[in-house]
Amino acid sequence: MKKIINEPQNIIEEMLEGMVKSYSTLVHRVDDSRVIAKNQTENAQVGLVSGGGSGHEPAHAGFVGDGMLSAAVLGDVFTSPTPDQIERAIEATNQGKGVLLIVKNYTGDILNFEMAKDLAEMNDIPTEIVVVDDDIAVEDSTYTAGKRGVAGTVLVHKILGDTARSGASLAELKELGEKVVQATKTIGVALAAATVPEVGKPGFTLAEDEIEFGVGIHGEPGYRREKLQPSKQLAQELVEKLVQAYPETPKKVGVLVNGMGGTPLMEQFVFINDVLTLLAAKDIDVDFHKVGNYMTSIDMQGLSLTLIDLTTPAWTEALTSPVTTISWG
Amino acid sequence: MKKIINEPQNIIEEMLEGMVKSYSTLVHRVDDSRVIAKNQTENAQVGLVSGGGSGHEPAHAGFVGDGMLSAAVLGDVFTSPTPDQIERAIEATNQGKGVLLIVKNYTGDILNFEMAKDLAEMNDIPTEIVVVDDDIAVEDSTYTAGKRGVAGTVLVHKILGDTARSGASLAELKELGEKVVQATKTIGVALAAATVPEVGKPGFTLAEDEIEFGVGIHGEPGYRREKLQPSKQLAQELVEKLVQAYPETPKKVGVLVNGMGGTPLMEQFVFINDVLTLLAAKDIDVDFHKVGNYMTSIDMQGLSLTLIDLTTPAWTEALTSPVTTISWG
Repeated sequence: MKKIINEPQNIIEEMLEGMVKSYSTLVHRVDDSRVIAKNQTENAQVGLVSGGGSGHEPAHAGFVGDGMLSAAVLGDVFTSPTPDQIERAIEATNQGKGVLLIVKNYTGDILNFEMAKDLAEMNDIPTEIVVVDDDIAVEDSTYTAGKRGVAGTVLVHKILGDTARSGASLAELKELGEKVVQATKTIGVALAAATVPEVGKPGFTLAEDEIEFGVGIHGEPGYRREKLQPSKQLAQELVEKLVQAYPETPKKVGVLVNGMGGTPLMEQFVFINDVLTLLAAKDIDVDFHKVGNYMTSIDMQGLSLTLIDLTTPAWTEALTSPVTTISWG
Repeated sequence: MKKIINEPQNIIEEMLEGMVKSYSTLVHRVDDSRVIAKNQTENAQVGLVSGGGSGHEPAHAGFVGDGMLSAAVLGDVFTSPTPDQIERAIEATNQGKGVLLIVKNYTGDILNFEMAKDLAEMNDIPTEIVVVDDDIAVEDSTYTAGKRGVAGTVLVHKILGDTARSGASLAELKELGEKVVQATKTIGVALAAATVPEVGKPGFTLAEDEIEFGVGIHGEPGYRREKLQPSKQLAQELVEKLVQAYPETPKKVGVLVNGMGGTPLMEQFVFINDVLTLLAAKDIDVDFHKVGNYMTSIDMQGLSLTLIDLTTPAWTEALTSPVTTISWG
């Protein structure tokens, strides 16, 4: 394993300090915690908290800021944060209007965020949870009952973040969040596995000419291994699967091409070019585009494609409004 | 070689189309060219053009937009764009106030940008060149007489972009550009080489536990190979070399940690944490921080560290002013 780190067991602490020292104009660390919270808190709004295991940077701390998340809780690499840490984030972001937790659908995360919700409610903070399960690749994966939560989560952050900033209530945000999750579908492909620093070797092995469809962001198995194909064919398979996952073909969508950490922007732009050609051939309008590393799997080579049904015009506006975060851009 | 591409010879065309289709609200392609130009042109200003070989994404097209570059010219992978293409960018961005070319110091780029300058001047467009040679690792490298131009180039884009937007003249921008280049110093380290798509195999080989100090962004040789060291030791070596490269230790600097394409943000944040500790121990204030993939070498694993002397307060303001680009953030 070749990584620019010090002791693997200190990696989260050192990464967190690197983030808050570098972007202290935007975010700060909540004292004695693994919570990164936004600085600007002038207008009281519902708090939006997300987080989960680390290793998906810039998710989630890179999306903390005005118009997006109020705070992110950082677990160990690929490991859920503990309920007490999540509760710290809830306490830190509650401005009297309650807190919404945006949680990717992994068994450990669900358990710990629900316990944190219970703790917060004992302290009279109204708390709700929106579970994101956008990965249509497989059901009931290694760490998941149902579908996994992956890159589509950042679109949920953005739409709910904008809506929370505009003054929506906790109940309204929960309802909207569930609608956005239903409209958001993702599928990924891996060329090479990630290496968890404390493990020291790749989580799975693919042959030199092999790829795997539907791999999860913690290296969970996908649905098929096959020889590497040109970008056009990959795009064809992923677009077809995503479109078919909707009860009715959406007329207007947003597209997120997300790099897994080890795949250059060059390939991501080649790939979205193929995706956009295919969507145009299906007469599906694309109202929102985003390309880059947003929900990574450490140094995994591969990418994911997310579609979101943008029939509701307000969602497009929410996706494109300005924010002040480290990584949304 | 595993890459998400189609035919390697079409990669630039397809990447370019992917970029302009995805970010058509910000940029457009100049007809029948390999030039990406910004959409907003309300206020006449000096045009700022950069570019070079592709494979360094998001450089340079990701930095086109209001407050930064007026246009970027895309060459083939690691190959300078031709003079006629550069001249197209000059024509497209001249608003009657002339055009400044920001060029990384590679022999091919210098030659072609100078020829484009001559072509433009024959068409009565005043044109100047600022050459960026921020890489202090080695002199007279594979493709370079003198020092190479690397990640510090994006800081030159940002400071000159902000200043051009504020109405500076061509002569003022050239003078400022040369001062900024003098104040900007970079050094990099590689863990694994990039693979050029048309070549199909890595440009050099390092042993499983080996790193190379001072590698260039096209895989040019550095100054020493050694066993992998902890982040703290790498930071120590790079910080010392950079600080010593200034005639006098700067009191106030900006820091850019730049990922080479295959190195996760997690490692980049661990590394900047070590850098900031070392600078603090030297009583050097840090007024500006940036962490991420800004000037990559396709999928190279590694990173570079850039310091810029920020004794002049206006430069810090220019670095932090808002811009509308794909990738500055």
